[in-house]
Amino acid sequence: MKKLSMIAVSMTLLAIFAGDAQAEMTREEYAIKFRRGGYTMIGWYYGTLHRMAKGVMAYDKALFARNAEYLAVLSKLPKDGFIPGSDSGETKARLEIWSNSDEFKKVNEHFENESAKLGEVAKGDNFEAIKEQFGKVQKTCKACHDDFKKRTE
Amino acid sequence: MKKLSMIAVSMTLLAIFAGDAQAEMTREEYAIKFRRGGYTMIGWYYGTLHRMAKGVMAYDKALFARNAEYLAVLSKLPKDGFIPGSDSGETKARLEIWSNSDEFKKVNEHFENESAKLGEVAKGDNFEAIKEQFGKVQKTCKACHDDFKKRTE
Repeated sequence: MKKLSMIAVSMTLLAIFAGDAQAEMTREEYAIKFRRGGYTMIGWYYGTLHRMAKGVMAYDKALFARNAEYLAVLSKLPKDGFIPGSDSGETKARLEIWSNSDEFKKVNEHFENESAKLGEVAKGDNFEAIKEQFGKVQKTCKACHDDFKKRTE
Repeated sequence: MKKLSMIAVSMTLLAIFAGDAQAEMTREEYAIKFRRGGYTMIGWYYGTLHRMAKGVMAYDKALFARNAEYLAVLSKLPKDGFIPGSDSGETKARLEIWSNSDEFKKVNEHFENESAKLGEVAKGDNFEAIKEQFGKVQKTCKACHDDFKKRTE
């Protein structure tokens, strides 16, 4: 019966991990991979918004609005990956994320809120207002990087 | 004057890449990194939906609905990264993505449409209908993997 229980447990674990095929990683490694993927996606869409806001790429209203909408959703996701124990390994996360979690939560909320506002204003035709709101998003990125991201030497 | 033009060009290129800080990569490498990040995020949220749909994790309506909503948005993103020339390197993308791009577009649309439907049905209370719709999403994943993703040996 003990053996059968072990099989049952193994089958359950197999089922748990079958959906994401990340069984070869620890949960913490997977969480790091997940949030890094999120920041890569954020950087990708942010990059195009940035180039349009700075005038190095022609402003395309539909593209700007679409990317801003994506950013508004993406801004909410990476925080799901800062699980306990995922503070070491392939990560630039600073320990303050966990030791000063209230502040980390606050800067994340700023990022989400300003990104949501950008998503809204980007639907309109006031490019000056759009650029101003983009600047506010940019500041929330910097605020978090300054306090919670390790510098790359 | 030629030197000044080169400086102007360099400044522009610098500005173009400053937003995403991926200047050390080629555009194609960055696109691969981007879409892989997207699939990692999709797998993360899909994994939780899968565990709840299969009954190996307790069904949490709010969590299921939230993740399904995220999946509905995330399903639209990775295709942005299949740019020309990004068919080799750190990727499991099969050449058919480019040689049979109409079919790739179609399977992507199925994935997006079924994910959007899951996002809708997940707001309701009919868990049987939710599970059925999850199964449809799952099939769209498999269809794309079968034809367009390299097998891992």
